[in-house]
Amino acid sequence: MDKTLHIVKIGGKLINDPASLSKFLEAFVLLPESKILVHGGGSKATELSALLGIETRMIDGRRITNKDTLDVAVMVYAGLINKNIVAKLQGFNLNCMGICGADGDMIRAVKRPVGEIDYGYVGDITHIQTERIDSLINANIVPIISAISHDGSGQLLNTNADTIAAQLAIALSKIYHIRLSYCFEYPGVLYDLGTPELTMSSISEADFNEMKEVGSVNSGMIPKLSNGFDALKGQVKDVSICGIENLSTRERATLLTL
Amino acid sequence: MDKTLHIVKIGGKLINDPASLSKFLEAFVLLPESKILVHGGGSKATELSALLGIETRMIDGRRITNKDTLDVAVMVYAGLINKNIVAKLQGFNLNCMGICGADGDMIRAVKRPVGEIDYGYVGDITHIQTERIDSLINANIVPIISAISHDGSGQLLNTNADTIAAQLAIALSKIYHIRLSYCFEYPGVLYDLGTPELTMSSISEADFNEMKEVGSVNSGMIPKLSNGFDALKGQVKDVSICGIENLSTRERATLLTL
Repeated sequence: MDKTLHIVKIGGKLINDPASLSKFLEAFVLLPESKILVHGGGSKATELSALLGIETRMIDGRRITNKDTLDVAVMVYAGLINKNIVAKLQGFNLNCMGICGADGDMIRAVKRPVGEIDYGYVGDITHIQTERIDSLINANIVPIISAISHDGSGQLLNTNADTIAAQLAIALSKIYHIRLSYCFEYPGVLYDLGTPELTMSSISEADFNEMKEVGSVNSGMIPKLSNGFDALKGQVKDVSICGIENLSTRERATLLTL
Repeated sequence: MDKTLHIVKIGGKLINDPASLSKFLEAFVLLPESKILVHGGGSKATELSALLGIETRMIDGRRITNKDTLDVAVMVYAGLINKNIVAKLQGFNLNCMGICGADGDMIRAVKRPVGEIDYGYVGDITHIQTERIDSLINANIVPIISAISHDGSGQLLNTNADTIAAQLAIALSKIYHIRLSYCFEYPGVLYDLGTPELTMSSISEADFNEMKEVGSVNSGMIPKLSNGFDALKGQVKDVSICGIENLSTRERATLLTL
């Protein structure tokens, strides 16, 4: 296994700001390895919901997805953001294809069982069609994956983009040496928001658990780290949190360790 | 050339009504040949625009597409409708992939030059990547194509779905025997809306021009017929206007002739 595949997930703040998104896409194009981009939708889904009078309900940072919220997520993630990213990358001569989990049956999920909380149309991933994704990569077409999956019976499902990135990394680690990067607005995990120039060079799962306990980890960072550690436990060797400038070099990035 | 490819375009009224769409998708799945589905967005784009306070401007049945209208078209056509169709077809065990023209650089267009009318972000098709579409078909993945193209320099463009179907038919007629079907809510072109059981068995371009002159052709039928005749002139041999029930048999469908 000597081929490297770089799976990059970008989050809300990079997507929301057109200048940051452009800067990111330019950096992404320059990555020398085979690559995949995974994205969510940032605050645009919330904004569109508000304009349409659809109430946004979050519990512990997770969106409760009713029928209307799902429609908005599909429109924003799989439509507006996905297709604009694809068009912009084509403009940089990077051939790519925008897909959601239903396309080519790439990412199957099961609607999350109703427990104490009914998350609605939220999907927990059950299967990734590794071969089909690999055949795109082999045809030099970069997959641009939006955070929507399907249940195989006609239903689309909203699925966390951090989780999709981690599960893709695990599934594709059988074929590739994987680099998994959670790319956001700082070059790595900060000790303190007041000193954004200081990043942690590495973070272990024990550190993370301790930080969660004392409440010193930012809520947006929790799913990135939590899914990142899942990827490590799933045999992905190289997982880090980074920014746009150090996406390729990893200088000042935070490496995850078990 | 002994392989047949059936290109089916569905229009607004079939898409707007969930029961009709389901019925159509069931009929589409049963088509025995290789196939492609092309769809627009019906009235949903107009409805969403109204909810968002975006004015819809039509000139001669054509939508004027400013930046906001384009965003709505991308969300509705390439997002909501495309991904829901794909998920539903996957539910019928038909493997398919939802694409717009930017995906895999499949359909390139140029922004329509501003003449007497400025149509805004509307694209006139310049190139179709026949080989890439064919490679999906050869992998038994049915392309589900939304009516959005791109200019190759980062800009998405709104493009008429009837035209996309005709241009795809012309481009792919070099590889396949093409059947091109414009599928709508009646089994064929009606003589008169008052007698929907009577359909024309064929219509020539001369008939069409005469009908346009005397104003006896429905405005929604004009782009279907006009693009259908373009396809015939571009060496597509088999073009018809049909409904859901006769999509496969062509009984009572209207065949276009030059």
